Amino acid sequence: MSKFLNERISRLSPYTPGEQPKDMEYIKLNTNESPFPPSKLGIVLCQQGASISHLYPDPDCTQLTKLVAESMSVKAENVIMVNGSDEVLNFAFMAYCDEKTPAVFADITYGFYKVFASLNGVPTKIIPLKDDFSIDIDDYINQDGTVFIANPNAPTGLLLPLSEIERLLKANPDRIVVIDEAYIDFGGESAVKLIDKYDNLLVTQTFSKSRSLAGARLGFGVANEKIIADLMRIKYSTNPYNVNRASAGLGMGAILDKEYFVSNCKKIIENRENTKAQLIKLGFKVTNSYANFLFAKTDKISGKQLYLKLKEKGVLVRHFDSERISEYIRITIGNEEQMQKFIEKTAKILEEI
Amino acid sequence: MSKFLNERISRLSPYTPGEQPKDMEYIKLNTNESPFPPSKLGIVLCQQGASISHLYPDPDCTQLTKLVAESMSVKAENVIMVNGSDEVLNFAFMAYCDEKTPAVFADITYGFYKVFASLNGVPTKIIPLKDDFSIDIDDYINQDGTVFIANPNAPTGLLLPLSEIERLLKANPDRIVVIDEAYIDFGGESAVKLIDKYDNLLVTQTFSKSRSLAGARLGFGVANEKIIADLMRIKYSTNPYNVNRASAGLGMGAILDKEYFVSNCKKIIENRENTKAQLIKLGFKVTNSYANFLFAKTDKISGKQLYLKLKEKGVLVRHFDSERISEYIRITIGNEEQMQKFIEKTAKILEEI
Repeated sequence: MSKFLNERISRLSPYTPGEQPKDMEYIKLNTNESPFPPSKLGIVLCQQGASISHLYPDPDCTQLTKLVAESMSVKAENVIMVNGSDEVLNFAFMAYCDEKTPAVFADITYGFYKVFASLNGVPTKIIPLKDDFSIDIDDYINQDGTVFIANPNAPTGLLLPLSEIERLLKANPDRIVVIDEAYIDFGGESAVKLIDKYDNLLVTQTFSKSRSLAGARLGFGVANEKIIADLMRIKYSTNPYNVNRASAGLGMGAILDKEYFVSNCKKIIENRENTKAQLIKLGFKVTNSYANFLFAKTDKISGKQLYLKLKEKGVLVRHFDSERISEYIRITIGNEEQMQKFIEKTAKILEEI
Repeated sequence: MSKFLNERISRLSPYTPGEQPKDMEYIKLNTNESPFPPSKLGIVLCQQGASISHLYPDPDCTQLTKLVAESMSVKAENVIMVNGSDEVLNFAFMAYCDEKTPAVFADITYGFYKVFASLNGVPTKIIPLKDDFSIDIDDYINQDGTVFIANPNAPTGLLLPLSEIERLLKANPDRIVVIDEAYIDFGGESAVKLIDKYDNLLVTQTFSKSRSLAGARLGFGVANEKIIADLMRIKYSTNPYNVNRASAGLGMGAILDKEYFVSNCKKIIENRENTKAQLIKLGFKVTNSYANFLFAKTDKISGKQLYLKLKEKGVLVRHFDSERISEYIRITIGNEEQMQKFIEKTAKILEEI
């Protein structure tokens, strides 16, 4: 840290991304990436975008925005494309929180919310999940602040039904509710269909998981036109050309190649359910995940120990030190072969105890 | 604007990017892009990055950082890669300005500085350029704030010699000086060589102009290790994976293909000097630009009128409404053919008056 750094930034605790070790080849089940490569059509469109990358991208990202809007059955005016959904989440903290409007979110959820709050000097109200890690919407009703809910939640994978989200939107008409749907395509029902009915709703989604594009940095927000106009105002005050030409090509391919997307989501769900059944057979307690990961613990070995032993055996999963979840590991759902190896190594570790 | 938007963001006046009209094909000399396509090697490396874009990028952007560091004769620890140099400029406002530390910059310079100040709630001290649009470094010495200087300056193209920048760094040891070198490769001398000598220096550069990659969104900051650590702290609190895989490939190609880069810069300088000579022949007053654009005015027609008439004839240049420069137009340097057409159309407009 330099002597010039101001106090606010000095106090920040930055986000810790999942480890990306370079010492050996791992079976990487630690950052919720897709095991399936980007769509081939995306690669072609990426190439086209790259070849004219001496020119700035269209700041309105018109083509991709239109495709995303169509795929969500909304108008282009209801969509903002961003450089990874973290960008639109940060915009929401900038736009809808301030000293008097805290950010309200769960104690166990996506780790970036507290970083964005701190970055923007915004107070927080942290709502503990229930003992079974579920979210009780009543805890969020009548809270004087902007609500951020990951649905499905991370790292638990638990899903709130749309009716519960609607109950919150209805009860909370003077406050923004942000539903972060990074993992919605693995079995959940999106809140996007509610944007015309509730002007206080912002839904965020990402291309990083179900659309096989973590490396492209693409995400989007869906909301009524006025919310999108607010967020555009921030985009044009930070990085008007936030979506680059090559990634926009990849994104267009991911949307146009709908069959590939649907089939990949289906495979992930199958692999998840198979892996879950096998973990349960091995004596694990596994949450009812609707995401592309499982969240599991066993009485036989601590979460930290299991994580370390799996790493020794060449399998990376994610372990969190926070007290309430330190017994768990989070396992990204890879392809069949990866999941089989994960189960084999895990069984071996349990045998060796 | 929604009723939910907080006061700070409501007050923002976002940046206005150069127009990107879709009504017809223009000779586009309005956004300082390169007329030369990205390097072919970059396209190949982009393709490789795209094909594994289901995986997150390396958050440290190790390979590209190393290449950029080598090309600048500094260590990797002295470089931060960003999603367009606007990102690192914004980081500098976040890190080194606050209520008590204003941002100090010229009245006529890159339009984003005042947007970043406003976005970050930072006070500004605006220093008027001299009548000839030059910067007097003495105006910046002993200013109680963080200095932002575009060198060469935009839209004037005027260059400060390195000795003047060094004089400021020496006189200002307790305040950060940011030198924004977006246009340095068109004839200027970079301040990068001073980073070991002055711990208060941050140099920013972009791939958008000389490296033919405006569409890739790539930029970087160069400074001593502690400054880079400060900026990394912000990167990891906003968007740890800010540089996507496809753009990183394009960037690596741009650095590795040094011959193409050098030859393109040389051509732009030649075209600039030729166009300048022809504008002077037509009676224009033209600043002594060291950038990939010219800044010119004539007594025969107003800047606004000339801009409009050129647009009618299919040539886009940039016109700014601000009082001191409203008589001028800024002309991006394109290829020979584009510049010849620009001169022909301009001559025609002057004849027709």
